[in-house]
Amino acid sequence: MNSSKLRIGLDVSGGDKAPGCNLEGAMSAVQQYGNRFDVVLFGDRNIIIPFLGQKGNSHEFEIVHAPEVIEMGDHPVKALQSKAQSSIRVGFEWLKTGKIDAFASAGNSGAVLVGSTSIVGNAEGVLRPCIATFIPRPMGGQNLLLDIGLNVDCKPEHLQQFAYIGTHFLNRVHGNPSPQVGLLNIGHEAGKGNQLARAAFHRLATDETLPFIGNVESRDIFTDRCDVFVTDGFTGNMLLKQAEAVYRVMLKRNLMDEYFARFNYEDYGGTPVLGINKTVILGHGISSSKAIHNMLVEAERMSRSNFCDTLNRTLHHG
Amino acid sequence: MNSSKLRIGLDVSGGDKAPGCNLEGAMSAVQQYGNRFDVVLFGDRNIIIPFLGQKGNSHEFEIVHAPEVIEMGDHPVKALQSKAQSSIRVGFEWLKTGKIDAFASAGNSGAVLVGSTSIVGNAEGVLRPCIATFIPRPMGGQNLLLDIGLNVDCKPEHLQQFAYIGTHFLNRVHGNPSPQVGLLNIGHEAGKGNQLARAAFHRLATDETLPFIGNVESRDIFTDRCDVFVTDGFTGNMLLKQAEAVYRVMLKRNLMDEYFARFNYEDYGGTPVLGINKTVILGHGISSSKAIHNMLVEAERMSRSNFCDTLNRTLHHG
Repeated sequence: MNSSKLRIGLDVSGGDKAPGCNLEGAMSAVQQYGNRFDVVLFGDRNIIIPFLGQKGNSHEFEIVHAPEVIEMGDHPVKALQSKAQSSIRVGFEWLKTGKIDAFASAGNSGAVLVGSTSIVGNAEGVLRPCIATFIPRPMGGQNLLLDIGLNVDCKPEHLQQFAYIGTHFLNRVHGNPSPQVGLLNIGHEAGKGNQLARAAFHRLATDETLPFIGNVESRDIFTDRCDVFVTDGFTGNMLLKQAEAVYRVMLKRNLMDEYFARFNYEDYGGTPVLGINKTVILGHGISSSKAIHNMLVEAERMSRSNFCDTLNRTLHHG
Repeated sequence: MNSSKLRIGLDVSGGDKAPGCNLEGAMSAVQQYGNRFDVVLFGDRNIIIPFLGQKGNSHEFEIVHAPEVIEMGDHPVKALQSKAQSSIRVGFEWLKTGKIDAFASAGNSGAVLVGSTSIVGNAEGVLRPCIATFIPRPMGGQNLLLDIGLNVDCKPEHLQQFAYIGTHFLNRVHGNPSPQVGLLNIGHEAGKGNQLARAAFHRLATDETLPFIGNVESRDIFTDRCDVFVTDGFTGNMLLKQAEAVYRVMLKRNLMDEYFARFNYEDYGGTPVLGINKTVILGHGISSSKAIHNMLVEAERMSRSNFCDTLNRTLHHG
């Protein structure tokens, strides 16, 4: 564990509630963890400085002036190229050159993902970076579901890598000593599923270094049948958004308890982009100040774990 | 509307709670609707007759002796061939030859589906029969999701047909005058999705006779954004089983209200097999007597609607 103070970059302009919630989240995070990390703010200095002053902020933030904004509706690739002074583009440049240790953004997710792969770049040996989400278990603890949308068309070898990336993430970043992997499928029996699932099953089942328990169904993601639920990004995105929608309907109908309350995205602080060379945390577009706070906490945890630097060894040696 | 009395076949041996719940469901259905349909029982006469006598049944059931049982774990194709005296096989033979108007089974779903396509056969013009489920809307009414598992690998033209089959089902069987279709995808914008979704979008969007509203996300299935949610059977199965699992977790945690109570499978009475020449209702393996009762009701509704006979015209003329 690296004990020096980290520098975590925050996209101040990204997200539906930017810049207010972003800056409030940053203030709250440094108030609590200012001895462990600094937050470097990427955004429009002329908006940030008055806001902080108005809020009576007592922390000295480093501000990197990046006045352009990549809007939610912008084309990710084009916007990253044309808006050279945008908070996302500048943040990624600083991350790439090591001027910050991690970067967190709740902005245009396409742009964050393109920046992750094209500016930061894949970790050695990684075919396809991916993103993951936690699904809480009723009995406590949580499962990891991946990919949730970065790779909508997958090959079996991609799913095999997601399995390694997921176990390495749970092990290294979240302290699970022996995470088990299941392949999402329409039934538990071998031979079930579509072409991809059947081919992936064969690949996972014959990989002796992988802690693979076999096929799992979508109903199992609320159980402790395994820890890592592997699927393609199309299926994962479908499941994630359905779970989020059920949570919101329940909230609206005043049906909530301590278990379902754990589906609140704010508590998770965004999704790390897994399989790239640096720590990038992608937040929800509707991120509140609490969510931004937790994104910064997750960025620190991810960065201190040396996940990125140790992933390659895991991919090659199980 | 055909006003003559229908003959609906019931698989007495199929399901985890057979034959007790099946026979109780049959008794309850004919008690209520005995003027509209008779229930023909397929199963072991030596089990059925004592059971009915013991229960003080007052209705005269026609019993078709079919002593063999296709077990839940049996291989569908092999079991249908080798167990010629099984309730499912004999039921399908009776259905095919017109000795019953509809057949309902909560047994081995693979065997029911193979029987549907190989014994009864596809309706004219149908590329792939499919199965569907209802998803209740919080504001009332319900959405149709299909396919939910019969076709795990699909081509765009299959999804296009599911759209027609789904709208025809809602219109003809459930009285929706103008059902709208959405394509399940990871985003609303055109151009989103995996290869299948992108190709299917193009096909649906350029089909002028289809009431297509565009891409929909899995979060939308709890809204009135459209009525028919079209997807491949792998994705649909994933979503269905996740929704069922959430319902069960909520039930277990005593979180229930009038909306979520409508996710109870018992109320739906099974899933019609859509796109074949006759009415077949496939029930849940854990079907209770209430579920069996409702399967028979759904079988009557489906049969009287002339869904099967009118589907071909819809497929060809929109």
